[in-house]
Amino acid sequence: MTDADELGTRLRRLEDERDISRLIASYGPAVDAGDADAAARLWATDGSYDVEGWQMASRADVHAMVSSPSHQSLVANGCCHFIGPTVVTVTGDSAVAVCESLVLVRDGDGYRVWRAAANHFMLQRIDDRWQIAVRTSRVLDGNPGAHALLRAGLAGQRAPALDAGAT
Amino acid sequence: MTDADELGTRLRRLEDERDISRLIASYGPAVDAGDADAAARLWATDGSYDVEGWQMASRADVHAMVSSPSHQSLVANGCCHFIGPTVVTVTGDSAVAVCESLVLVRDGDGYRVWRAAANHFMLQRIDDRWQIAVRTSRVLDGNPGAHALLRAGLAGQRAPALDAGAT
Amino acid sequence: MTDADELGTRLRRLEDERDISRLIASYGPAVDAGDADAAARLWATDGSYDVEGWQMASRADVHAMVSSPSHQSLVANGCCHFIGPTVVTVTGDSAVAVCESLVLVRDGDGYRVWRAAANHFMLQRIDDRWQIAVRTSRVLDGNPGAHALLRAGLAGQRAPALDAGAT
Repeated sequence: MTDADELGTRLRRLEDERDISRLIASYGPAVDAGDADAAARLWATDGSYDVEGWQMASRADVHAMVSSPSHQSLVANGCCHFIGPTVVTVTGDSAVAVCESLVLVRDGDGYRVWRAAANHFMLQRIDDRWQIAVRTSRVLDGNPGAHALLRAGLAGQRAPALDAGAT
Repeated sequence: MTDADELGTRLRRLEDERDISRLIASYGPAVDAGDADAAARLWATDGSYDVEGWQMASRADVHAMVSSPSHQSLVANGCCHFIGPTVVTVTGDSAVAVCESLVLVRDGDGYRVWRAAANHFMLQRIDDRWQIAVRTSRVLDGNPGAHALLRAGLAGQRAPALDAGAT
Repeated sequence: MTDADELGTRLRRLEDERDISRLIASYGPAVDAGDADAAARLWATDGSYDVEGWQMASRADVHAMVSSPSHQSLVANGCCHFIGPTVVTVTGDSAVAVCESLVLVRDGDGYRVWRAAANHFMLQRIDDRWQIAVRTSRVLDGNPGAHALLRAGLAGQRAPALDAGAT
């Protein structure tokens, strides 16, 4: 006989992982639709996003990035932020996730791959909803920061401190 | 103490989402193997597939598309229909799912990305099996239809009406 | 009233599928970080990996491949082994999984897609942990072996015997 409380705990773990995978999978469709509200709400109010050392320090900053003329012109030209499958490690109300991602841009009658990156996420359950506390991305161009993000993510560990200038 | 009926309901939700993600993830391998039977059975008998305004109106139409000389020559040359992670919203015996996808074709000693698209799925549980009722795809080239599909999909809403000619 | 034992069985199935999807999703980040330990531990001690007829016959062989100068120079230049969503079929302590994958390499100011492949996995639960027993990959260039891997994987069947020389 299996205990219902133990089943509930295991089920909750699967639901947490589902929620986090779903949240991260939502990022690509949100930014490729140019939907700043949908993208920003994935972050905590004070959540951060560090792309190649460029720092966004809040949900409002993510909203501003998606709303910006440079992002909106990418959307108008045709872009695809393609997210890979996520490896998630949940510990209570905190979680770490890692995935790779591609950014494709329309070019002639097809698309070219502009970026291929490592992504490390630290998430928190806030107000009963998972939210991104820290996202750190580095392009896969041989820089050790990208490798450190992947290793830490697979191990379920916090993002390593990276040089702001390290791309 | 957790109630077993409530656990069963939550578990069923996860199983439904798993079934739908698995169904959509099967599409790429099925069509890249040129397997018309495997691809067609993902659709309901009267399920539809609208690609850039080109209308397939039944499971038989999907079967005919995969069997067609143009698709089979794509397979013979080497192609990859690469599906992204799916965001699924289940409501009883209906569901909405959204994902992005790439189509790559062999070109010289590598592959080029021919298409990058938004995909919106409306699914129904029929005969105790999830089946695609309506799939709508639009390429990410700046057209508002693609963005509307992504937004509706993330919100778990029905596919918007799109111009047949809108690509 | 739902029986707790039946719930436990269904939950275990979802956990198994989660474990296997997570294992396969870990491959890309592990090899793109050049982390031979993380990649090798996905395989059983005597697990095999057949890429285009090139045979690795053990966990140690996979470790050696990731540690090799040719793989490490790929990592130093910038590469991305991008894994698609996995279709998993569990039968007791055995499982079959199938997915497509891309390998991208840095080229100028972007990336080019070097390979697009079909991947078939046979897994075993060993020491209470899922491990890869047999992985077989063939590039999607029209060769029938790749199609046979995809069809067998979707059907939850063992990998077909392929010519060593069939690429």
